[in-house]
Amino acid sequence: MTSSLEQLEEIARSLSVYGDILALLHWDTGTMLPAGSIESRGEQIAQLEGYMHSLVVSERFSELLSEAEQAPPEDEWRRANLRELRRLYTNASCLPQELVEAKARAVGACEMRWRQARKDNDFAGLLPALEEVMGLVRETANARAAASGLDPFDALMDEFEPGARAEWIDPIFDDLRTFIPEVLPSILERQRRSTPRLPIKGHFPVESQKALGRRVMKALGFDFNRGRLDVSVHPFCGGTPDDIRITTRYSTAEILSSLMGIIHETGHGQYEAGLPKEWRYQPVGRARGMALHESQSLLLEMQASRSRDFITWLRPLIIESFGELEGAFAIDNIVRHVQWVERGLIRVDADEVTYPLHVILRYDLERSLLSGDLQLKDLPSAWADGMSSMLGLTPPTDASGCMQDVHWPSGAFGYFPSYTLGALSAAQIFQAANKAEPSIPEQLQAGSVEALMGWLRTNIHGKASVASTQEILEAATGSGLSTAAYKAHVQRRYVEGADLG
Amino acid sequence: MTSSLEQLEEIARSLSVYGDILALLHWDTGTMLPAGSIESRGEQIAQLEGYMHSLVVSERFSELLSEAEQAPPEDEWRRANLRELRRLYTNASCLPQELVEAKARAVGACEMRWRQARKDNDFAGLLPALEEVMGLVRETANARAAASGLDPFDALMDEFEPGARAEWIDPIFDDLRTFIPEVLPSILERQRRSTPRLPIKGHFPVESQKALGRRVMKALGFDFNRGRLDVSVHPFCGGTPDDIRITTRYSTAEILSSLMGIIHETGHGQYEAGLPKEWRYQPVGRARGMALHESQSLLLEMQASRSRDFITWLRPLIIESFGELEGAFAIDNIVRHVQWVERGLIRVDADEVTYPLHVILRYDLERSLLSGDLQLKDLPSAWADGMSSMLGLTPPTDASGCMQDVHWPSGAFGYFPSYTLGALSAAQIFQAANKAEPSIPEQLQAGSVEALMGWLRTNIHGKASVASTQEILEAATGSGLSTAAYKAHVQRRYVEGADLG
Repeated sequence: MTSSLEQLEEIARSLSVYGDILALLHWDTGTMLPAGSIESRGEQIAQLEGYMHSLVVSERFSELLSEAEQAPPEDEWRRANLRELRRLYTNASCLPQELVEAKARAVGACEMRWRQARKDNDFAGLLPALEEVMGLVRETANARAAASGLDPFDALMDEFEPGARAEWIDPIFDDLRTFIPEVLPSILERQRRSTPRLPIKGHFPVESQKALGRRVMKALGFDFNRGRLDVSVHPFCGGTPDDIRITTRYSTAEILSSLMGIIHETGHGQYEAGLPKEWRYQPVGRARGMALHESQSLLLEMQASRSRDFITWLRPLIIESFGELEGAFAIDNIVRHVQWVERGLIRVDADEVTYPLHVILRYDLERSLLSGDLQLKDLPSAWADGMSSMLGLTPPTDASGCMQDVHWPSGAFGYFPSYTLGALSAAQIFQAANKAEPSIPEQLQAGSVEALMGWLRTNIHGKASVASTQEILEAATGSGLSTAAYKAHVQRRYVEGADLG
Repeated sequence: MTSSLEQLEEIARSLSVYGDILALLHWDTGTMLPAGSIESRGEQIAQLEGYMHSLVVSERFSELLSEAEQAPPEDEWRRANLRELRRLYTNASCLPQELVEAKARAVGACEMRWRQARKDNDFAGLLPALEEVMGLVRETANARAAASGLDPFDALMDEFEPGARAEWIDPIFDDLRTFIPEVLPSILERQRRSTPRLPIKGHFPVESQKALGRRVMKALGFDFNRGRLDVSVHPFCGGTPDDIRITTRYSTAEILSSLMGIIHETGHGQYEAGLPKEWRYQPVGRARGMALHESQSLLLEMQASRSRDFITWLRPLIIESFGELEGAFAIDNIVRHVQWVERGLIRVDADEVTYPLHVILRYDLERSLLSGDLQLKDLPSAWADGMSSMLGLTPPTDASGCMQDVHWPSGAFGYFPSYTLGALSAAQIFQAANKAEPSIPEQLQAGSVEALMGWLRTNIHGKASVASTQEILEAATGSGLSTAAYKAHVQRRYVEGADLG
C-alpha cells in the first residue's frame, strides 16, 4: 500500500515536472517569443499555473498532509520534504483565489503602466495603479500573517527567503548603515590618489564576446551539455536543474559588464546544477531561497571573479579575443575597473560596497509603506531624503529614483533584502571555502574552480532545502549570517586596495 | 446555465492551450534543447500528454458528448465542432492505455535503434525492434478499426488524414503508376538535350542565407511579429497559429535547398496563420489534415516559388546577397536547378515528378506489412524489387533503401500517402487560384503573393476543419481530388519545359 507521504510525493513530482514546463515558457518569453505572441503565451502560463495551484489547494492534498504528519518519517531528508510540502500547501492555500487573481491582474496592469511612466518620468501617472497593487499586497501580507502567525512584512519576505525576519535583519542592516558610510570616504580617497583608470573602449564584436563568455562559463564548470547561453533584455538564469538557461546582453562598446553578468548568472546556474539528483523532483530538493541563490551568483562574480587571482587568468583570454588595447588590458587596469566604487543613483549599476545602501533604503521604505506610516504619494520625497542621507545624492528624476525598479509595481514587496543577505552570505561562504580549501586562489589564477565548486557542492548546493538558510550557513561556515566576512572583504579589497599591484 | 456543448468547448479550450504548450516543448526539443537534457524533456512531454489524454478519455467528456449530440446546434461551425469533438474522443478512447504506453515505449526504443542501424546499414539489427512496433501498430489498427468500422489500414490513415480511404486513393495512385513512368523518359531526354546546368557553387555565409530567407519569408507574407526562423537538424514548422516557428538548416556550399526548404515551411506556417481566429481554441478551428497541410507547403514551394515567375523576382536578391556567379545565377540556370528531375534512391531528395513513385512504393509495402502478406524480414528484398520496377534503381544498401525514413520505426504507418495527396491537391488548388485570380503570375514576378494568399485564406485556410478535405477541395476547385491538375502541371513544366526561356 502506498503511504500518504508517498502519495504526496507523487503529486509533488507532477508539480515539479509542470514547474519545469513553466520554466521553459518563461525562458522562451524572455528570449525567443515574438512580440505579437505575448497574449497567447499569457494564456498558457495562466492556465498551467492555475492547474498547478489546484493540485496543491485540494482537500486530498490537505488530508494526505495531515495523515503523513501523524507519523513523520525517520529519514532527515524525507522529514524535511514533508515540512516543505506543508510549506507549499500553506503558501498556496492561505490566499483566497479572488485575491490571487486580483493581484495578478493589478500587477499586470501596473507593470505595463510602470514601463511607460518610467519613460515619461511620471510618478503621478503610476500612482493609481501602484496604489491598487499596494492595497492587494497589504491584503496578501495580512492573509499570510494570519496563516503563519508572522508579522505581515516577515510573511512577505518569507515567501522569497524562508526564515527571513525583520528582527534578524535589522541589526545586520544597522551594522551596515554605520560601516559603509564610515569606510566609503577612505575608499573613494584611495581611488582618487591611485593611478587613474584607462578607459576600456573599442568595438567588441558580439560573436567574440559570446565566445569568450562561453569559454569563461566552461572554466567555471558550466556544462553546455545541460545548458545554454542566450540573449535577453534583462539577464537571468532560467530553465531547470537539468537544462540551465543563462542569458546576457551585449554592448559592442563595452565588455566587462556583460562578462561579469554572465559569471553572475553562471553562479546561479551552478547552484541549480548542484542540487541533489535524488531529490530532483521534490520540494526539499529545491534551492533554499533567494538569499542563498544570490550568494552563489555573487560569490562567483564578486568574490571569485573580480579578484586579482581570476583576472590574472582572464586577461590573456581577453587579449586573445579582442587584441591588445594600449595598456587598458593591463591587470591593474582591469582590476581597477571591476573593483571600481562610486556613489550612484541606480541599484543595478552599484558596486558591492554601496549596493547594500540601495537595499536598505528600499527595505526601510517598503516596511513603512506596508505599515501605512508612509503614503505612496509621499514616496518620491521619502526616496529623495533617504538617498540623500544614505549616499549623499539627490535623484534628478523619479525615473532615476523611486521608479527605477520593477519590484514594487510587480508586487514583490519584501524581495530586496535578499540581495544584501546574499552578498553577506557570499563573503562568509567564500571565506569558509578558502579556509577549507587553501588551493582556491591558486586555482583561480589557473582559471579553475574545481576546489571551490567541490566545496560548494558539498556544503551549499547539495543541502538544497533540507535545512534553513541559517542552519546551512552555520554548518558550512561555523556561524549564522553575520557582517564580519563582508566587512573584512571590503576592508581588504576596497579600503586597502589589496588586489592592486 | 451552461449547455453540454459549452462545457465541452470549455474543456476543448483547455486542451488547445495545453496543446500550444506541448508545441513549444517540441519546438524547443528540435532547436534549442541541450543533448543532455533530453531525458527530462521526455518526462515533461509524457506527463503533459498523459494529462491531456485523461481530460478527453473521461466519463464526463463522454456524457457531455452524448448530451450535446441529442440537440446538435444549428450553426454549421458549432455542429462541425461537435463532430470534431466526437472524433477527438473516439481517437483517444478507442485504444487501451496499456497499448498506447507499450507503443510509445516500443517506438522510442525502435527510433533509437534505427538511428544506429541506418548508420551501420544493419537491417537485421533493426528487425526485432521493428517487429515489436509492427505488432503494436497492428493492434492499434485493429482497435481503431473496431471503433470506427473502417478497414484497419484506413483507420491508420484516418488519424493523419481524416477521410483518407484506400478505395479512394487506389485509383489515384494507379493513375500515377502509369503516368509517371510514361512521361519520365521524355522529361529526362529533354533535360539531356537542353543546355547543361552550370553548378551553383561557392561559399555562401549562413548569415547572408538567413537574411535572404527572412526577406523571402516576408515577401510570402510571413509575419515575424508572430513567428520566428531558427535552425534544426530536420526542418519543420512548429509552434502555434499565434506564434509560428519555422526551422531550416544551412550548408555554406549550397543555397537553393535551404531556401526552398524555408519556403516549404512558410507554406505550412501560412496555413496555420490563416486558420479562423474565432475558432482558434476549438477542434474545428484546426488544420484539416496532413494532405491539405502538405498541399499548402508544396503549393508555395513547388507551384509558386519554383516557377520562372518567382525566380525572376528572386534572382536579383540572390545576386545582392552573394554576388554574381559567372552565369550560374542566370534565370534559366536557376530555373534548371529548381526544376531538375532525376531518378534517385532517396525520397526527401526527390523532385516533384518522381516523388509520388517513392510514396506509392511505401504505400504498397505498408499495406502488405499490415495485412501480413509481407513479412518484415522480407522487406529489404521487396523494397529492392519495388524500387527497381518503379524507378529502375537498385539500392546498394538498406540504409539507402528501406531504412531511409523514420516513419515506420516511429510507428507512423499510413502517413506516407499524405505527401502525394498533398502534391496533387497543391496542383489542383494552384490551378483554381490562378483561374480566380489572374494577377497571381504577375504578382509572383514582383515578389508578392497577395492575391494568392487572399484566395487561399478564404478558400482553404479559413475553412479549417469545418468540412472534409474532399469537400473543401470541391468547394475551392470545383471537384474532389484528381490527378488532372498535377498531370497538366508536369506536362507543362517538365515535359514541355515551358518555364525555360
